[in-house]
Amino acid sequence: MELFYSSDIQGGIVRLDPEESAHCARVLRHRAGDGISVIDGTGPLYRCRLTGDDPRGAVAEVMEVLPDFGAHPYRLTMAVCPTKNIDRYEWFVEKATEIGVDAIAPVTGDHSERKVLRADRLERLVLSAAKQSLKGRIPEVLPVRSVQELIAGAPASALRLIAYCDESLPERHSIVEALKEARGREIVVLIGPEGDFSPAEVAAALQAGFVPVHLGPSRLRTETAALTAVQAVYLSCI
Amino acid sequence: MELFYSSDIQGGIVRLDPEESAHCARVLRHRAGDGISVIDGTGPLYRCRLTGDDPRGAVAEVMEVLPDFGAHPYRLTMAVCPTKNIDRYEWFVEKATEIGVDAIAPVTGDHSERKVLRADRLERLVLSAAKQSLKGRIPEVLPVRSVQELIAGAPASALRLIAYCDESLPERHSIVEALKEARGREIVVLIGPEGDFSPAEVAAALQAGFVPVHLGPSRLRTETAALTAVQAVYLSCI
Repeated sequence: MELFYSSDIQGGIVRLDPEESAHCARVLRHRAGDGISVIDGTGPLYRCRLTGDDPRGAVAEVMEVLPDFGAHPYRLTMAVCPTKNIDRYEWFVEKATEIGVDAIAPVTGDHSERKVLRADRLERLVLSAAKQSLKGRIPEVLPVRSVQELIAGAPASALRLIAYCDESLPERHSIVEALKEARGREIVVLIGPEGDFSPAEVAAALQAGFVPVHLGPSRLRTETAALTAVQAVYLSCI
Repeated sequence: MELFYSSDIQGGIVRLDPEESAHCARVLRHRAGDGISVIDGTGPLYRCRLTGDDPRGAVAEVMEVLPDFGAHPYRLTMAVCPTKNIDRYEWFVEKATEIGVDAIAPVTGDHSERKVLRADRLERLVLSAAKQSLKGRIPEVLPVRSVQELIAGAPASALRLIAYCDESLPERHSIVEALKEARGREIVVLIGPEGDFSPAEVAAALQAGFVPVHLGPSRLRTETAALTAVQAVYLSCI
């Protein structure tokens, strides 16, 4: 199944933008009368019938709405410091979308070597990964903030976890154990840069009520650590 | 920490091959007297002192042996059908090594589009991933076999799992639940190709005592499914 994306679904009529229209009518050679599946990124899947196959502006009518299509039974924000090599960050974003994540919050830490990030690239990536993995909801890409801003802004009602490597810092729980306390609450996981968090960042997180966690004995790169946290949440619900 | 690899450690003397010697003495400019860390791929880490810094044949003496360096508390064989796009398979092999795996068994199924694989590339990859992630033991890359051969050859004493997608086949358990039955036994996980296993392969696996498992509600690519299984084993032990 191929999913199309549209931000213009009103009154049972779906309009595809020129890029999606060209893909639908020219590349895949869909013609009026064909069935297509469309998402608007907010959750549902719209089963539609193509009524206009213009490759510059295709139009379809909604036949059926499947709510929460490809949804996962948790709400997860991954706050992850960008890696020096941005390909590795983009890889994480793609795989996290495939497994199941609700928001990606790029954060820059005191030890981050990379402080900037192209949000438009990440937004294209989550859209394409959501379509590829048949998800009705596209993860939100939040604006870049500092680790301290993320800590201050994370809702106190959420289960907030900070994964750090420094073994001299306060005792950490296994993320698997920590997730047992989620009990349906939103989950926020904070993952540091290659150089780990600064002691000031860890202190601020603990002060704010973040739970310190570890990701097991393997020495993981930033992006693998972040994906391992997503998997821990995903696997805790299956 | 940088790890060097040597297949020639005898009587407390480590000899590096020309490639590792050049990396040690020319690229990293190590000189006689420097401390270096060496693995032989079987488990231990050797803390050594360089005694000869010839970039064509460096020599070191072993000062200390740390057994089971970077080891994980399980024994896992991942039997995974190669993906059409081989980069995706290599990505899986690299990430699985980083997280923790003991053997990679490439298998070809009835529905596999790719039947050949360059073992030398995979062997270089596991070596470099093991060094990068500071592991004393390099995963074994087994020869390519058919799914049927793998099923027939997997030890009956192991917890053997087969992950398949077809929901019309016998009821599957969550991999998380299935792993609770591991109890220290070797684990073998069989992951099919893009086109899933054939009904004959599933029947043979169930007949042989494989436990049918699912990997949760997300629609995962072959390589993401395989990595999710590695993560499930890893996370079940932390």
